[in-house]
This record gives sequence, structure tokens and C-alpha cells, in this order.
Amino acid sequence: MNASPIYAGIEGGGTKYVCALSDGRSPELIARVSFPTLNNPEATLGACVAWLRNQQAAHGRIAAVGVGSFGPIDLDKKSPTYGRITTTPKPGWQDADVAGAFASELKVPVGFDTDVNVAALGEREWGAGRGLNNLVYITIGTGIGGGALLNGEPIHGLLHPEMGHIRVCRNPAEDPFEGICPVHGDCWEGLCSGPAIEKRCGAPAQDLSPDNPVWGKVAHYTSVALTNIIFTLSPERIILGGSVPKGGQLGRDKFMAMVCAETTKALNGYLKVPALLEHMDEYIVPPGLGDNAGVCGAIVLAMRAERGA
Amino acid sequence: MNASPIYAGIEGGGTKYVCALSDGRSPELIARVSFPTLNNPEATLGACVAWLRNQQAAHGRIAAVGVGSFGPIDLDKKSPTYGRITTTPKPGWQDADVAGAFASELKVPVGFDTDVNVAALGEREWGAGRGLNNLVYITIGTGIGGGALLNGEPIHGLLHPEMGHIRVCRNPAEDPFEGICPVHGDCWEGLCSGPAIEKRCGAPAQDLSPDNPVWGKVAHYTSVALTNIIFTLSPERIILGGSVPKGGQLGRDKFMAMVCAETTKALNGYLKVPALLEHMDEYIVPPGLGDNAGVCGAIVLAMRAERGA
Repeated sequence: MNASPIYAGIEGGGTKYVCALSDGRSPELIARVSFPTLNNPEATLGACVAWLRNQQAAHGRIAAVGVGSFGPIDLDKKSPTYGRITTTPKPGWQDADVAGAFASELKVPVGFDTDVNVAALGEREWGAGRGLNNLVYITIGTGIGGGALLNGEPIHGLLHPEMGHIRVCRNPAEDPFEGICPVHGDCWEGLCSGPAIEKRCGAPAQDLSPDNPVWGKVAHYTSVALTNIIFTLSPERIILGGSVPKGGQLGRDKFMAMVCAETTKALNGYLKVPALLEHMDEYIVPPGLGDNAGVCGAIVLAMRAERGA
Repeated sequence: MNASPIYAGIEGGGTKYVCALSDGRSPELIARVSFPTLNNPEATLGACVAWLRNQQAAHGRIAAVGVGSFGPIDLDKKSPTYGRITTTPKPGWQDADVAGAFASELKVPVGFDTDVNVAALGEREWGAGRGLNNLVYITIGTGIGGGALLNGEPIHGLLHPEMGHIRVCRNPAEDPFEGICPVHGDCWEGLCSGPAIEKRCGAPAQDLSPDNPVWGKVAHYTSVALTNIIFTLSPERIILGGSVPKGGQLGRDKFMAMVCAETTKALNGYLKVPALLEHMDEYIVPPGLGDNAGVCGAIVLAMRAERGA
């Protein structure tokens, strides 16, 4: 039994639910497990709750739970549907009460936010955004999402950011691929998500040769989106996570260098700050916590929930 | 003499400097004056200071000054160049110490922020954004700028937003006009500012006939920018100020209706919130304070500075 409090972090993705425990003093996890995200939220959330209960028997009582969830979700604490998924196309998950499942079963404070806001919290605490109060976390994978901290707080607003749907200015004369977003066609997600790359090339990103021109296109469109984000949010750093920026056989370093070069070109020296003029490779960076950004951020969110934040 | 404290608000634009006094209890101004923004910042700021000194003789001591300034400006309180204009192309104003001019001459707390962040503060206090903690204020005039409040606080970050330079996806096959932004060509400002409209049409916006197709183009590009802002910041409302949204002979109502319709089309129902699905005309709105948004917001900033915010 562990005398100091332990926290549970849940990263609820469209493909899998990752659960982890930590004492909150470092990104080291006491335990970690993942479950497939079934079309049945009760079963999926029930598996997480059962695992957490078992862990309590081994490690002591969980003080609070943090959940970073795929969306769209309701983050308005005054809303009757707070803590729920709202209008997802994922079968079974519309209106699923994610935060409520943990709160009612475990009777502890539950923090709830988007998967990407939560990843930003994790990266700020222990990763590549350490100590930065204005931070953007992007994931490019099955979909594209963006979270942000401003003045140290996750950004919510009317709903929450949906940065994957930013327009990235495809010129049909130069790029006839129309994109796969069912709502917007050629938005950022429609052109640069893993499934978009696979649709365009007939093979998944990781199987493409390093000189496939799609890497240049993805880096370019990504730079347009990042430029818009920089002009809108003015973050101190942008963290680019998810599977696509790993760059497949091209490799992460080369892909990130292409994104940085294209972003420098797009900004064209307008913002005269050294971070953007001279150190783009330290401005757009991979996650310091790798694939654990989300689950570590969920631990941070749990600690915030315990403090009543 | 006035016994209650009075506050000075300064809206420092590239064309004129507006100064006003208020007791901070309403958007009513005790006095208001404007000076042309000369290529000599000392003379311009000196005229403002002299006017404020004269007003003190009539109305009592000024408790604090708020300045909303054209930019780019240095908002980092830890920076040696805090309170200054940085890299403006405006002759004479590079490195001008705007905040310092008021602080050293009047010996009162001075708040300093971008003209558009300050206008957002004013609209939140007394205008069309009353009580909203997540608010975007856009001005489309000589240039295009955007300010934002998030969780009630103005957004700064690495530098500050420069929303006018968002890319708005011109398709050269449909619109051959290349835009006039010296840095980015066909960014939002390059296509939709007053001078861009004049360059495209050979006449200023206010002289164009209501059925000139440029209004449709400006509304369309504006909707692309607003869509990107919505996906990135998720504001609770967007206020569209400046001369261009007045719509010239088309009129403000018709122009705003075009922007709302195009934005609805661009979002395409993705964000399922009533504000965006059913009430776009209450979501993208004109300033409640009209042309006084900036100077009223500067009064709010002065009050914040007095409180040490």
C-alpha cells in the first residue's frame, strides 16, 4: 500500500482507452493499461472502472481521476450534459456520460477536458512545454485535433477548439485530391490525417517511401494551419504529436524539419521574434512525453480536480 | 472638480490618436479629443500628454491611463522594451516608447495592450460582448487586426495575435487579384482591408455600388478567416468593427448578413451549438460601442492597471 495519494489518468480515444496511475510527482506511471474503445461505452468505461478498482486494492485509494476525451464534448460545468460526448459519429458514443461514469462509480473528483487540451497540460508539466503558459498541442493521426493553454489554462470558450478543421488553402489546380473530411472535404484533417494520406496514396503513411511527394504536401498544409494558429493564438511553442509526424520511413526529424521550413516560409519574417526567426526547430517540436502525453496530462488534470480547479 | 477618480483612455492608431476621460462607470466620456498620428512619436504622444494635463486642471487628477496601441508591440512586462512599438513599418515609430511616455510624464499606473485586445475589453464591459469571457474583436479598416479575451483575460502569448494575416484560401483560378499585403500577398488583410478593396476596384469601399461583386468576395474571405478563428479559439461571440463592415452603400446589415451566411456555409453544421446553427446573426455582430470601442476599452484597461492587473 502506498501512503501518498495516487491519481488516475484516462485518455479516452476513438480507438482505445488508456488508463494509468501515478503519484503525480513525475511522468512515471505506477500502472498502465489500455482497452479497445468498443461501440458500447458502458462496457468500455466499465472496463476502466473495474481496472481502477482493482488497482485501488493494490496501491491504495485513488484521490481523483482526470479524463482527456475525444470529442466533441460538453465542457460547460453549468450544462445538464456536462462531461458527456456530444455529437460524435462514433457509433454508440453520442451522449455517453464519460465523466459521470467515473464520478458515480468511484466517488472522487473527476477532471474532464479534451484529449488535446489534456495532452497540452501533460507536456507543460513534464514534457516539451515545461513552464510555458501559452502552449498548443496538436495531434495528427486518425484525425487532427488541437488543444491550447492560454495564461496556463486550457481553452474552452463556446465549445472547445476543433483545430483539425482549419482551412489549409488547397489549390485545386496544383493538388486535385479533394480530401476526405465528410463535412469540409479539404480542411487540414481532410488532407493530412492518417486516413487521408492512405486514401491519397493507396497505402498507410508508414509504408510510403521517404521520397513520396505526399510528405511535402502534408508538411505544407500543416504549415498553413500552424501559421493560422500562430497568427490567432500566438503560442510560445507548438507540440506536434500523433502518428503522422513520426514521418514513417522518412523519419520524424526530416518530417519536422520540412514542417519548420514551410512554416518559416509562410510566416515570411512577419513576426520579428527570435523564436520564429531563428529557432523554429525549438518552436515546433515533438512531444517530450511521446505517446504518454495524454495519459500524463490526465494525471495533471486529476490533481487539478482534487484542488477544485 | 470631480471627486471620484477619473481614468484616461488612449487609442493609439496608425492614423490618429484618440484620448478620452471617463469615471469608468459607463461608456460615457467626460472629454474626448483626437490628434493625427504624425511620423514623430514624441510630438504625437506629447500632444496627448499635454491634453491630459489640461484636463486634469479641469476635472481632477487622473488615476490611471490605459493605452490600446497599433502594433506590433512588446507586451512582455519582463522585457526591457515592454510598452514599446516594435517593428512597425510606420516611419518614426519603430521602438517608440508609448507606455513609457505616459508613465514618466503623468506618474500614474499605465495599462498597455493592442488596440484590438483593448476594444474587446471595452465591448465586454459596455458593448456587444457584455459579460462574455471568451470574445473576439476584429477590425477591418486600413488594416485587419483581431484581439481576444479568453477566460476574461486578453490573449498575449509569444507576442500577440496578428489575425489579419490568416490565410483565406484564394483560388487563383477564380480570383486573380493577388492581394496587397507586402509580406503575404493574399492573406485576409491583403484581400479585405480598405486599401485592398480600393486597389482591386479602383475606388474606396464606400463609393462602390451595393451590387459590386467585391462585397461577396470580402464577405467570403472574411468567413474563411472567422471559421479558422472559431475552430482555433472557440469564442462565444465575434465582434466585427472597423470601416469595411459598415458596408459602404450596401449597408452594414446586408454586409453582416452576407458574412453570417458564408460562415454558416463554411462551418457546414460541424459544431452543433445553437449559437452557430441558429443564431449566427447574434454570434457575429457589430460593435455595441461603435467607433468608441477602443477608447472605452482603454478606460477599462486603465482601471485594471490601477488595480494592478
